[in-house]
Amino acid sequence: MSFSADQLNEYRQFAETLADAAAKAIMPYFRAPLPVQDKGGKLFDPVTEADKAAERVMRELILEHYPEHGIVGEEEDNVAAGSSGLTWVLDPIDGTRAFITGMPLWGTLIALNDGQRPFLGVMNQPYTGERFVGTPAGAWCNGQVLKTRACAGIASARLMCTSPQIFDNEQQLAAFNAVAEQVQLLRYGGDCYAYCMLASGHVDAVIEAGLQAYDVQALIPIIEGAGGIMTAWDGGDAQHGGPVVAAGDPVLHAQLVAQLSAAMR
Amino acid sequence: MSFSADQLNEYRQFAETLADAAAKAIMPYFRAPLPVQDKGGKLFDPVTEADKAAERVMRELILEHYPEHGIVGEEEDNVAAGSSGLTWVLDPIDGTRAFITGMPLWGTLIALNDGQRPFLGVMNQPYTGERFVGTPAGAWCNGQVLKTRACAGIASARLMCTSPQIFDNEQQLAAFNAVAEQVQLLRYGGDCYAYCMLASGHVDAVIEAGLQAYDVQALIPIIEGAGGIMTAWDGGDAQHGGPVVAAGDPVLHAQLVAQLSAAMR
Repeated sequence: MSFSADQLNEYRQFAETLADAAAKAIMPYFRAPLPVQDKGGKLFDPVTEADKAAERVMRELILEHYPEHGIVGEEEDNVAAGSSGLTWVLDPIDGTRAFITGMPLWGTLIALNDGQRPFLGVMNQPYTGERFVGTPAGAWCNGQVLKTRACAGIASARLMCTSPQIFDNEQQLAAFNAVAEQVQLLRYGGDCYAYCMLASGHVDAVIEAGLQAYDVQALIPIIEGAGGIMTAWDGGDAQHGGPVVAAGDPVLHAQLVAQLSAAMR
Repeated sequence: MSFSADQLNEYRQFAETLADAAAKAIMPYFRAPLPVQDKGGKLFDPVTEADKAAERVMRELILEHYPEHGIVGEEEDNVAAGSSGLTWVLDPIDGTRAFITGMPLWGTLIALNDGQRPFLGVMNQPYTGERFVGTPAGAWCNGQVLKTRACAGIASARLMCTSPQIFDNEQQLAAFNAVAEQVQLLRYGGDCYAYCMLASGHVDAVIEAGLQAYDVQALIPIIEGAGGIMTAWDGGDAQHGGPVVAAGDPVLHAQLVAQLSAAMR
């Protein structure tokens, strides 16, 4: 789908309204004592009241303003896109583990997908007061233009990854480690914030795995709008999650895809 | 040494003056393109102009106001404590790797040591606007009292560590991993910020190694002032750095020291 500048602007403003509403629902819980439930699964995966409250308020706003749009979220069932063909993809708190340890690196992720790809993305971090926005027209943080930095080789790259525990299996971990041993700087613990630092030109690559669609869709327009590339490890579409690799420099991205693909064969 | 409330208050205010001056020197460099030098050593260890400028301005202020005090800092030579017996221990930017990747988790660390122990500590994070202060009278963030949370066992602990690369050898890494496998939640990538989240009651334990005196001295009064304990892995004095373990709950701390000590025998 293609959109007029006015239509795109309307959706961007609405996405920011969702971000505001989510922040209002979440912030009373940040760094406040709260019960943490375990969703089960391989790792401790906390679900908080904040997550649920924020998704609920965003879903209500979408149903009110765009009843014909679809919704995919972390906490509740999917709503199919109607005649509009448009779907909001929501992660109220990406980085729940950052959230419950008090680290200001979690974010509310909001994407709008036209059935082909996410073309609008917002990452909102209300504690630091940073809002990252990506559209086909570019990417911004609080209105300031984002631009990835040049990095022509793995040896000079700053690489981030939320945790070595994120990988699905030993082969993935080995593939990641083989790349990580070559970089100039490796840093763990970033969640969605790491991708935004990549869009801002401070980080060159983020390599992760085991992600869901709602973990990645908002980040793709931000990274692409800033001049970067985000794909699956094999170079394919990243929008469905799984193992993803983002890089600020297309040359670096191609090198990373080549190494990761070879290691996974 | 023991100090009157007035004397302690004077030193605390002066430490905050140092933090302000360091922040002013550092912030123009944060998220701005800057050359990064490699100090050498096992890992990529960047030294930035910001580090050097901030330490210089803090040393100048100390020499001006307390010429009889000693200075230990990361970037320049030690100044011996004169008749005062007091030494300022400075790390202008703890978490340089966080700093150059744009993550707001670095901090300026300022401690005052009376020859026996650091009795005053400041961690200042100017991007988020958070200042953590610890004295024998307590610990605060921006004036709000800090209190560690209860956590009576490893299985319910939230554990942080800057990176698995921080350990000096395989035995240390294995000892850390053996603990990490038992905790409820493990998160990497915290630097000094992780210790302050422990003091704030959001994190239960931080286990690291390879630290310098200037990496830890400011954090000890903050953690102790909030009710926590920070020691070497063997339960000894943490102020000289090396392998350290901090916990918010003394019961948890004793368990961690027991396990880490046993694993290092």
